[in-house]
Amino acid sequence: MLIIFKKGYTEQQLNHAIERVRAAKCDPHVIHGIYKVTINVIGDDTQLDPEDFKKLEGVEDVISVSKPFPLVAREFKKEDTIVQVRNVTFGPDSFIVMAGPCAVESEEQTIRIAKAVQKAGANVLRGGAFKPRSSPYAFQGLGNEGLKILAAARKETGLPIITEALDIRDLDAICEFTDIIQIGTRNMSNFPLLKEIGKTRTPVMLKRGMSATIDEWLMAAEYILRGGNTNVMLCERGIRSFDSKYTRNVVDLSAIPVIKNLSHLPIVIDPSHGTGRKDAIEPMTLASLAAGANSVMIDVHDDAENALCDGAQALKPHDFEKIMACLHSLAPALGKTIPGAKAAIRNTV
Amino acid sequence: MLIIFKKGYTEQQLNHAIERVRAAKCDPHVIHGIYKVTINVIGDDTQLDPEDFKKLEGVEDVISVSKPFPLVAREFKKEDTIVQVRNVTFGPDSFIVMAGPCAVESEEQTIRIAKAVQKAGANVLRGGAFKPRSSPYAFQGLGNEGLKILAAARKETGLPIITEALDIRDLDAICEFTDIIQIGTRNMSNFPLLKEIGKTRTPVMLKRGMSATIDEWLMAAEYILRGGNTNVMLCERGIRSFDSKYTRNVVDLSAIPVIKNLSHLPIVIDPSHGTGRKDAIEPMTLASLAAGANSVMIDVHDDAENALCDGAQALKPHDFEKIMACLHSLAPALGKTIPGAKAAIRNTV
Amino acid sequence: MLIIFKKGYTEQQLNHAIERVRAAKCDPHVIHGIYKVTINVIGDDTQLDPEDFKKLEGVEDVISVSKPFPLVAREFKKEDTIVQVRNVTFGPDSFIVMAGPCAVESEEQTIRIAKAVQKAGANVLRGGAFKPRSSPYAFQGLGNEGLKILAAARKETGLPIITEALDIRDLDAICEFTDIIQIGTRNMSNFPLLKEIGKTRTPVMLKRGMSATIDEWLMAAEYILRGGNTNVMLCERGIRSFDSKYTRNVVDLSAIPVIKNLSHLPIVIDPSHGTGRKDAIEPMTLASLAAGANSVMIDVHDDAENALCDGAQALKPHDFEKIMACLHSLAPALGKTIPGAKAAIRNTV
Amino acid sequence: MLIIFKKGYTEQQLNHAIERVRAAKCDPHVIHGIYKVTINVIGDDTQLDPEDFKKLEGVEDVISVSKPFPLVAREFKKEDTIVQVRNVTFGPDSFIVMAGPCAVESEEQTIRIAKAVQKAGANVLRGGAFKPRSSPYAFQGLGNEGLKILAAARKETGLPIITEALDIRDLDAICEFTDIIQIGTRNMSNFPLLKEIGKTRTPVMLKRGMSATIDEWLMAAEYILRGGNTNVMLCERGIRSFDSKYTRNVVDLSAIPVIKNLSHLPIVIDPSHGTGRKDAIEPMTLASLAAGANSVMIDVHDDAENALCDGAQALKPHDFEKIMACLHSLAPALGKTIPGAKAAIRNTV
Repeated sequence: MLIIFKKGYTEQQLNHAIERVRAAKCDPHVIHGIYKVTINVIGDDTQLDPEDFKKLEGVEDVISVSKPFPLVAREFKKEDTIVQVRNVTFGPDSFIVMAGPCAVESEEQTIRIAKAVQKAGANVLRGGAFKPRSSPYAFQGLGNEGLKILAAARKETGLPIITEALDIRDLDAICEFTDIIQIGTRNMSNFPLLKEIGKTRTPVMLKRGMSATIDEWLMAAEYILRGGNTNVMLCERGIRSFDSKYTRNVVDLSAIPVIKNLSHLPIVIDPSHGTGRKDAIEPMTLASLAAGANSVMIDVHDDAENALCDGAQALKPHDFEKIMACLHSLAPALGKTIPGAKAAIRNTV
Repeated sequence: MLIIFKKGYTEQQLNHAIERVRAAKCDPHVIHGIYKVTINVIGDDTQLDPEDFKKLEGVEDVISVSKPFPLVAREFKKEDTIVQVRNVTFGPDSFIVMAGPCAVESEEQTIRIAKAVQKAGANVLRGGAFKPRSSPYAFQGLGNEGLKILAAARKETGLPIITEALDIRDLDAICEFTDIIQIGTRNMSNFPLLKEIGKTRTPVMLKRGMSATIDEWLMAAEYILRGGNTNVMLCERGIRSFDSKYTRNVVDLSAIPVIKNLSHLPIVIDPSHGTGRKDAIEPMTLASLAAGANSVMIDVHDDAENALCDGAQALKPHDFEKIMACLHSLAPALGKTIPGAKAAIRNTV
Repeated sequence: MLIIFKKGYTEQQLNHAIERVRAAKCDPHVIHGIYKVTINVIGDDTQLDPEDFKKLEGVEDVISVSKPFPLVAREFKKEDTIVQVRNVTFGPDSFIVMAGPCAVESEEQTIRIAKAVQKAGANVLRGGAFKPRSSPYAFQGLGNEGLKILAAARKETGLPIITEALDIRDLDAICEFTDIIQIGTRNMSNFPLLKEIGKTRTPVMLKRGMSATIDEWLMAAEYILRGGNTNVMLCERGIRSFDSKYTRNVVDLSAIPVIKNLSHLPIVIDPSHGTGRKDAIEPMTLASLAAGANSVMIDVHDDAENALCDGAQALKPHDFEKIMACLHSLAPALGKTIPGAKAAIRNTV
Repeated sequence: MLIIFKKGYTEQQLNHAIERVRAAKCDPHVIHGIYKVTINVIGDDTQLDPEDFKKLEGVEDVISVSKPFPLVAREFKKEDTIVQVRNVTFGPDSFIVMAGPCAVESEEQTIRIAKAVQKAGANVLRGGAFKPRSSPYAFQGLGNEGLKILAAARKETGLPIITEALDIRDLDAICEFTDIIQIGTRNMSNFPLLKEIGKTRTPVMLKRGMSATIDEWLMAAEYILRGGNTNVMLCERGIRSFDSKYTRNVVDLSAIPVIKNLSHLPIVIDPSHGTGRKDAIEPMTLASLAAGANSVMIDVHDDAENALCDGAQALKPHDFEKIMACLHSLAPALGKTIPGAKAAIRNTV
């Protein structure tokens, strides 16, 4: 950590800051430059808050060099984290495809689509029982009823289930009926929820906040790991930009190499919510595989016109099958395997 | 609502959309332009979701003309909403100053600062018992203990209290011990929390999400009003931009005239969290008054160096007094009164 | 175009707007909704400016449905534009790799790197003679001397040359010595420059402004096409976001399907300037191919430590060769050919 | 400047960086922390480019402490710069109002509006002869003819003239016929233009690029000062955000205290282009005065419906008069004088 002093600081202010550094069991290294005086803080500063020094009198700025997310950082754990969900392995060698309807609408609809995506080669079934909607007048999901339907679809197909949690009071039921808890973009900084999830051992997919920095995203993940739950995956789902006329968000695929460099956690891309347009799903899915993502999550609906939520971006099963075929033809050149490939091919034949 | 069709749409697709419009009890008006065919939807479309039409086959885009927040919109209620908090009136004629420490640290600290801001002329005491912090290693607030301290400070000074709610499980206690519930920027889209607050009648200050559009912000307020709680104030606290080197956020003061045009709810500005720098608080506070805000919320701490949270932006009581004096000298020219002025002047003399 | 009236508009205002629409030789279609009155403008409105109607008394908003870039729009020319640069064809079936140093530093350096990228399989040589630098104290390029060096490198290798134009006064020399004019992100809206380039027939690569919307980018291209120069390619080079800690910009790969849908012009990706980090170049280059880009431009330098410009992101020739090998192994599965492949392989063997 | 090394750096890489620092005549101070090794660079590093060190092998990041705009920085010139334009003084004690039509349309229109804004108390006449328009089909200005009209309006009213320059080839005429060169947001990074303006001694108003950081803006100003022209004013005109539904841009008023802290140059606010909506001009103008701006620039047109450019945001003379009256009543409380006040009042009486 580097503490930079204003022009016109006093000796007393400098000494006060030096004491503070020592009180934090670090070693202050004072350097008199031509324009600026700085203190270089030597020692374990990963849990020091730069803000605590920024507020001292005479201080102009404080710059932190350490990563503020020790448990999440690759600096502290070199090996890629592998998240095991039933028979599906999220890790460096595989490319996992999660697919299904945006929202659970009925048991019939959910099982029908689950079978369709399974036939096409999907590895995990997605489906929302609790839906966070901008408007209070929009469909808010079937709630606990939806969870039971998801469990039924799992029983029918064997596919593990991912579903979103919005409310602490639903966590027990979500952990009972499903396999992966999804934290949506609006809840990335819902710290009470993250803390509760940290107490479970259920795998979690943490979506990036729509305008969260990479550091904020990783600190949110740190909340979960710190609670003891290390089964965390990160999901880039598009960030907010100045232009939403043609795509709802901008999918930041360079987050893939950045996250792989900074952290040991797997990374998932959501091209459906990330772009909000059907014709962008295939190119962005293939690009996700090419850029090194560990997984992808895709909205599929066989009756998008009557979907109760986000139908505009949902692919038909037939288009989803075409994407699966492209993924299978690209994966070998990238050294990745897509589990269930054989089953899918068998089904196709 | 305007439904625009793609080149190459089919008659069947057009007829299907027409039926959908009729099913929603609206009147479809088909117009054949040179380049595009459109359906203009006539009727009560305030609760129609454009997404429901966007997903129809053959549709290129859907444009909504109505405001998707009927209860919040000035179109449906012309008079300014007045929010009464004990003896303090948030409304069109007054300019209310809320001030206090970012976080409650101890009873002694809270009462000491409460007295200081009251002496300077503040109308409401702010103080956080539950703190949403990016890092799990940062101070998270005193919790329920903090609420009791705030109640003690109210008893001592008579100032109404505003404090932030993060967790549904804390709502009862917050409503019992304090006067205004603050919803922070990270929770603007925490819909379960908004729904619960809608069931209370406690005044609420809803901060704008850090990258929320004006429409999203007003739809979040709609969640609360729809529950029956009409005591809602909106708080602009800075939005995220591409440049956070010198100010943490960009305070969007033009939101003041925009909100006044769109809605009947009072609007508050938070220059402290909005800019994150001491020397910007005075200019932005005066600018808020000049631009027509109903209220302002300012971090004040008499020992910022030892503050447990956000000390870098907290003003000293002495600097806060100077701002209050400037506000008092500007307010008459703007036709606003700052209640408690006399008391403050009496104290100063 | 849709003209929406305010509540409380007058008949006179409505009639005035109707006359205006008729004066523009379009047909006004007035619709009385429950909440709003609108005029739907029927006719050729591609060259109408919505702003001209927004300023009329009584008008609340104006929404345009047509694309304001007729020459660039796929609606008006269905076939993909093919840009031929000497023996290199930018079009739907190929994937063209442009590579070379950020800046021309000397003849020796330029020819050395040109040979290296050619050996690895690059199709076009990039190199800057005129450099737009944020700081006036940074290296500004060799100017006309640099152009001659580029011409010498072309003579030596046969590779066509792309170089950036900043100043109208340099255009003649650039057209004489090089093959493709690059318009950088800072000059996307330099309309006098675009108009002059429109008068030439030299191929142009127009980079997206760092915060330009898709519409603004395509309207900038329209300036060039309108002048008669149809040899235009679009280059996405990363847009500005709220987080530049780990990547300089965010490369918007979803612009690829969006542009392909809206326009017939080829699209190029610049992962080097788009991310500014070496370890992101390979994943983003492969992702560009997978997402359907027509070309990619990569900074390569064999002595990045001594590069006079942007060395931090430049790949070594050896790393560039690895990317070329990956591209060659992926391209067939995507139905794309990379010209020069054989030569490259021959060189490698 | 602080050079941070990667984990796993080599001694050779460290020594190499040390040599580079010494070659730049600075003193390298190596510090071995627990997690990181850093070099603190002591000496005159204002003209060192951090990028030059970022590209060295083994280096993870480089952090600059000095301001990269020495001539613009207040650190190097404490006194506020005063820009004198004929009889109008832009400086710390005054608040200058520039007003007029967005575009010069005819001599009659320009002189008529010039007289109207003068009567209301404006100090400078604005008017565009060269207009940068997103669409090539929009009105592009009268060009040199427009400059002559502006000069005629100056002769008639005595008001100094500000007009925008887009093209180096027009600079001589602009300097001959007008008083202040405006550099628009699209040309903030048009470095050839800035260099040419640096050679003149004509006062310049440099608008902030629509997504320029504060540092980029000040470095652009540095280009002009470095050429010898110190008559530079900075103009905040709204930055691009994720929400442009209700305001075209977000006016960053906190730039006022930030710029005053960083630089000695005067700062102007443009609420007209910054917000793009009439009802925001008055609140944002008053807020600009309250926040400490030195000047403001406002679009005024007496026939906005027929304006050839940006009529939607232009105020009528009558509304502009009301704003002037408000400014006059606020200014004394803020210690600012608005020159021409007496004349205006005389005219009003």
